[in-house]
Amino acid sequence: MTGSPFPAEALALAGRLADAAGAVIRPHFRTGVAIVDKADESPVTIADRDAEAAMRQLIEDAFPEHGILGEEHGSVRLDAEFVWVLDPIDGTKAFISGLPVFGTLIALLHGGRPVLGVIDQPISGERWLGAEGRGTTLNGRPVHARACERLDRATLFATAPDMFKGEEIAAFERLRGSVKLMRWGADCYATAMVASGHADLVVESSLQPYDFCALAPVIEGAGGIATDWEGRPLRIDSGRRSAIAGDRRAHAAALEALAWHA
Amino acid sequence: MTGSPFPAEALALAGRLADAAGAVIRPHFRTGVAIVDKADESPVTIADRDAEAAMRQLIEDAFPEHGILGEEHGSVRLDAEFVWVLDPIDGTKAFISGLPVFGTLIALLHGGRPVLGVIDQPISGERWLGAEGRGTTLNGRPVHARACERLDRATLFATAPDMFKGEEIAAFERLRGSVKLMRWGADCYATAMVASGHADLVVESSLQPYDFCALAPVIEGAGGIATDWEGRPLRIDSGRRSAIAGDRRAHAAALEALAWHA
Repeated sequence: MTGSPFPAEALALAGRLADAAGAVIRPHFRTGVAIVDKADESPVTIADRDAEAAMRQLIEDAFPEHGILGEEHGSVRLDAEFVWVLDPIDGTKAFISGLPVFGTLIALLHGGRPVLGVIDQPISGERWLGAEGRGTTLNGRPVHARACERLDRATLFATAPDMFKGEEIAAFERLRGSVKLMRWGADCYATAMVASGHADLVVESSLQPYDFCALAPVIEGAGGIATDWEGRPLRIDSGRRSAIAGDRRAHAAALEALAWHA
Repeated sequence: MTGSPFPAEALALAGRLADAAGAVIRPHFRTGVAIVDKADESPVTIADRDAEAAMRQLIEDAFPEHGILGEEHGSVRLDAEFVWVLDPIDGTKAFISGLPVFGTLIALLHGGRPVLGVIDQPISGERWLGAEGRGTTLNGRPVHARACERLDRATLFATAPDMFKGEEIAAFERLRGSVKLMRWGADCYATAMVASGHADLVVESSLQPYDFCALAPVIEGAGGIATDWEGRPLRIDSGRRSAIAGDRRAHAAALEALAWHA
């Protein structure tokens, strides 16, 4: 393990986790009728729960000493050196509505810091994998964020206006008013588009650790940056706000526009 | 032509138009770097212009007496009995940002009324085709909108909050406050999801005829309904507002919530 921030086998395991989640999720896509309550036994609930269970079993088999934090089945061993953070279906609304822009998010944390991340889209068959010391790939081919030095050249994504609350609303409006192009929707797929050089910024709030931990290594391995609104690197104990960019200059300008001091 | 509202050859031509547009568009997807000005020679501008030119040529060859209204190259013979309405890339922002939820829209109008419509997604290879007297298909298989009798069970789509202006804002907020699930983004792909039974409502404004004409036959052939906010069927001379639903009961409830009287 010298030099690398994670066991070498973790990289292959991350791919197997995404494979397992996709195999569970795909048969449930576009099968729902009118049931959208998360409390119901809806297709998304079943897919979410079973995909996470499949991934947890693979982790327990390979690394029984690692911790796990999942959206659906809670947490174990969060004080372990290594902790996996899982969100089987990020973008539940997209999944429910038949849109192939949801994703399976898998992160490996070392001392609370994300060092390996996967964004997997099991319908289109696209897998972004980022890891410290390795760079980010899409289906095995390296990807790179694009240059964007100024907000008035930037494409900004956020999932939905109502994710911003209280003073966040005015802060986000300042940023939105400064960018070239604003696009709503897309969830984790928006970050994948930044990693691949098709968009510049994803700024969100109302997040949980399983929403953002996987995004950081994917973006950083593509040359970008992922922080909270105060500019601190994303960690398991970060707050609810993320600011992700392909170019540090656009990121700095975005933080300035947000002018956030919590 | 007795009984059918359009020449039999028009159905096959519509498929050839979508094929031609897709062949032009696909090589330009995810090739852009930072150029997002529509006035520039950006990939989306080239794809949009060349795809429409390819479709117009096929129409001129097959039906030289038909009219054509296109987003990119203007209009000819709008007083003809039959008029084709073309939008090579509906969802320009999605295309620019690398999201496979844009679409090519093709409509055939008879006396100003849409009687045939295509929503084609050339990256995922999904084609919705609706025509009077034929029903709607996705890649040749019939699709049907789902039942949704009440707004509090409905999934509502709109492309972006800023498409609503003036009194539309409050009207849309009344509707949004009544539905089960609101999802932003998706452009014409949202209507395709309603036709396939994965969502219930698409309510938009700031539209041009080439944005909505193709949607009406696709929705109606799947058992749904497409009108303006006053409940009038969509036509080439409809205003800027559309209300599309898979179930007439949800549609009626949506119009009531909008409470629109222009």
